[in-house]
Amino acid sequence: MTPSASALLTDLYQLTMLQAYFDGGMTRTASFEFFVRRLPEHRNFLVAAGLEQVLDYLETLRFTDEELAWLADCGRFHRRFIDWLGSLRFTGDVEAMPEGTVFFADEPILRVTAPLPQAQLVETRIINLLQFQTMVASKAARCTLAAQGRLLVDFGLRRAHGAEAGLLSARASHLAGFDGTATVAAGMRWGIPLYGTMAHSFIQAHDDEAAAFEHFARSQPAANTMLIDTYDTESAARKLADLATRLAPDGIAIQAVRIDSGDLAEHARRVRAILDGEGLPGVRIFVSGNLDEFAVRDLLASGAPIDGFGVGTRMNTSADQPWLDCAYKLQEYDGQPRRKRSEGKATWPGRKQVYRHRDADGRISDDLLTTTDDGADGEPLLVPVMRGGRRLSPSPPLAAVRAHAAANLAALPPRLRQIGPAEAPRVTVSPALHELAETVDRRVDAGAPAPR
Amino acid sequence: MTPSASALLTDLYQLTMLQAYFDGGMTRTASFEFFVRRLPEHRNFLVAAGLEQVLDYLETLRFTDEELAWLADCGRFHRRFIDWLGSLRFTGDVEAMPEGTVFFADEPILRVTAPLPQAQLVETRIINLLQFQTMVASKAARCTLAAQGRLLVDFGLRRAHGAEAGLLSARASHLAGFDGTATVAAGMRWGIPLYGTMAHSFIQAHDDEAAAFEHFARSQPAANTMLIDTYDTESAARKLADLATRLAPDGIAIQAVRIDSGDLAEHARRVRAILDGEGLPGVRIFVSGNLDEFAVRDLLASGAPIDGFGVGTRMNTSADQPWLDCAYKLQEYDGQPRRKRSEGKATWPGRKQVYRHRDADGRISDDLLTTTDDGADGEPLLVPVMRGGRRLSPSPPLAAVRAHAAANLAALPPRLRQIGPAEAPRVTVSPALHELAETVDRRVDAGAPAPR
Repeated sequence: MTPSASALLTDLYQLTMLQAYFDGGMTRTASFEFFVRRLPEHRNFLVAAGLEQVLDYLETLRFTDEELAWLADCGRFHRRFIDWLGSLRFTGDVEAMPEGTVFFADEPILRVTAPLPQAQLVETRIINLLQFQTMVASKAARCTLAAQGRLLVDFGLRRAHGAEAGLLSARASHLAGFDGTATVAAGMRWGIPLYGTMAHSFIQAHDDEAAAFEHFARSQPAANTMLIDTYDTESAARKLADLATRLAPDGIAIQAVRIDSGDLAEHARRVRAILDGEGLPGVRIFVSGNLDEFAVRDLLASGAPIDGFGVGTRMNTSADQPWLDCAYKLQEYDGQPRRKRSEGKATWPGRKQVYRHRDADGRISDDLLTTTDDGADGEPLLVPVMRGGRRLSPSPPLAAVRAHAAANLAALPPRLRQIGPAEAPRVTVSPALHELAETVDRRVDAGAPAPR
Repeated sequence: MTPSASALLTDLYQLTMLQAYFDGGMTRTASFEFFVRRLPEHRNFLVAAGLEQVLDYLETLRFTDEELAWLADCGRFHRRFIDWLGSLRFTGDVEAMPEGTVFFADEPILRVTAPLPQAQLVETRIINLLQFQTMVASKAARCTLAAQGRLLVDFGLRRAHGAEAGLLSARASHLAGFDGTATVAAGMRWGIPLYGTMAHSFIQAHDDEAAAFEHFARSQPAANTMLIDTYDTESAARKLADLATRLAPDGIAIQAVRIDSGDLAEHARRVRAILDGEGLPGVRIFVSGNLDEFAVRDLLASGAPIDGFGVGTRMNTSADQPWLDCAYKLQEYDGQPRRKRSEGKATWPGRKQVYRHRDADGRISDDLLTTTDDGADGEPLLVPVMRGGRRLSPSPPLAAVRAHAAANLAALPPRLRQIGPAEAPRVTVSPALHELAETVDRRVDAGAPAPR
């Protein structure tokens, strides 16, 4: 039911503005940049994600005949404009930070340069795609840091906000270090490793818990994780020990157990003791249930013998911060830098670049935000990815993006890698950019230059 | 890119459990119910939504040849099972509360009764569809109550979690009382009224703010809302007054202004004074920017002269509570009531009905939760909607759902209609249901009955 590539995935005002641009012949080149105004309270950094889907969208953008007919019927637009919309394609350029790059407040992660109507129309869907995956990748990266190498699996499709959110959060979390997902469609779409256990209903549907375990182990001899908290966690663990003895002659081993309720650390300790006492040290303990990076950190800090975590809802919805204070703003039109000066929402004008500086160990030390024509030292983070509406090269495979993200996380200074709050990273605004902002303000305050 | 109707929009464990059910011949009738365990902190009630999409999903559920081939290749499933999946269709029954019905904790809003594998497979997508729309409709209903009849428009596509979330939240908020949405695709899909203003980029792209206003008014003479906070809100309002005088001879009127930053109440008062002083009492004031039901309540309580609100991010993402503590649980299999007893997550067993009682004024007084076969007084809230995999009648048009929701909100007792917290509504669990839970527990504690 979701036309996820529809050109109508936009706000009405984009179309009414486009008609005014069309009527007024305002089709010169514009540059818009996407950035996050402020880091959320519990984020020491953000991880860029969603670029591949943005480029897919731009390459395929077009209005269908059915959509054009509907727009013509709705009474807001005139015929010449509708016809022009029918021929509209995205023919612009895009610079962006590669997916998986760590970034901070005020740093553009994507710039669109195109005829004004094109660059305007795509605002809504670009924000929709970039904010969500960036938000989830940033939350998931914190889980990755907290888990210290334990198995991490995305369990969140059911409470994600719809189908696309479920799929894209499986992608964004894998990109940021999760080992895999339970979402089958994401496995098929991107080759993300799939993990699964069993549900309480499987146990309940059997008249006897031990019989349910045996049934499942015989059906899944090579990959079985037994859910043991349906009735009583420790007594289920003892039933499994008995079962292991019965299954051994058939060459079937129980791989893991999952605990989904109660005091997870305490249950894990008791279950570990039962399993070890019964000669089953190889059965791993997997936990789930309302987990996030704080819970993962605390469980491991308590020394609980946990081998893996199923993390869902709170990661997929970025529950403590389910949106980013982000924007896609006009920074230049027709060769003139522009900026908005609304209270609390002023932006830095012009086309910008971010230069990253590292210390002797290769760790990120600070970033410089400046204009694109202000040659500066350091590693430029925005790179060309699209010219004339076509990708410069195919988007990298997800495994490569994942490796890039891992390298970025490894390069974070230790204070930013902790789960608790840290001193903000240093982002310096260059003198050239300060000067440009003053020039733009003087121009606006002086009134209009001659119209062009 | 989103296969939003794909049968693979499910968790891997559903498929591994299905193979075990298939191998063990466990295909007798099961009943699962969807319910919310607890009302979130700032919700005095919830509004059921998402049923239409669930029924669409169940009626069209099938694995495509491409999906079956991928499943066969992944190495987890045997050929006979894959072939059986290929023939799988949903042939079961559904009872549900109509969309727009107010409900409370522990009350099932949907029951699926079908052969166990079918009822199990659909768990993930059913939760995914019901929790999201119910969560958004419940949040939006609070905005509706707070707005006291002012214009309310959904502005949230850009920060919704993907395309489907944007579309479905436009639907869920309209259902719960929003006048319309800015999301064009939702207007085309469901006929939801569309509203739009202009973006800061429109102002910035012009060299002069007054010229931008005039350009827009002449392009949209019948529907123009001018964004006045790009540089200085009050001076923009004065420019509009001048413009109104110039446009009047051409029969063009300025309809409204939008304020998107700063102290909205204070700006609204000053702008109202400027417009009234210039003889423009008919120009309405519309505000936006990080609004939710609390902000709307406070703005109106302050007496600010505001005629309408654009509410986005915090409503579409249900930002203060972006997930519900909900579940879809097995309540009966093969004629035997079942329940889960996990710590803090125990469920009431068996197939259940909710009977609503009203006071002399027609207001909701209390609900009774009981078994379906316990004939009780009151209005039964769950009604049959699907038999043998087919809808009993077409889903009602959105306008009818909206009217049903409005009647439900009007029937709330005053304490539950306030935005602040209220004493929880009374949901009584019947003696028959208490007795059934004890019987089920005794059966489980006594060990397995004879296998069937």
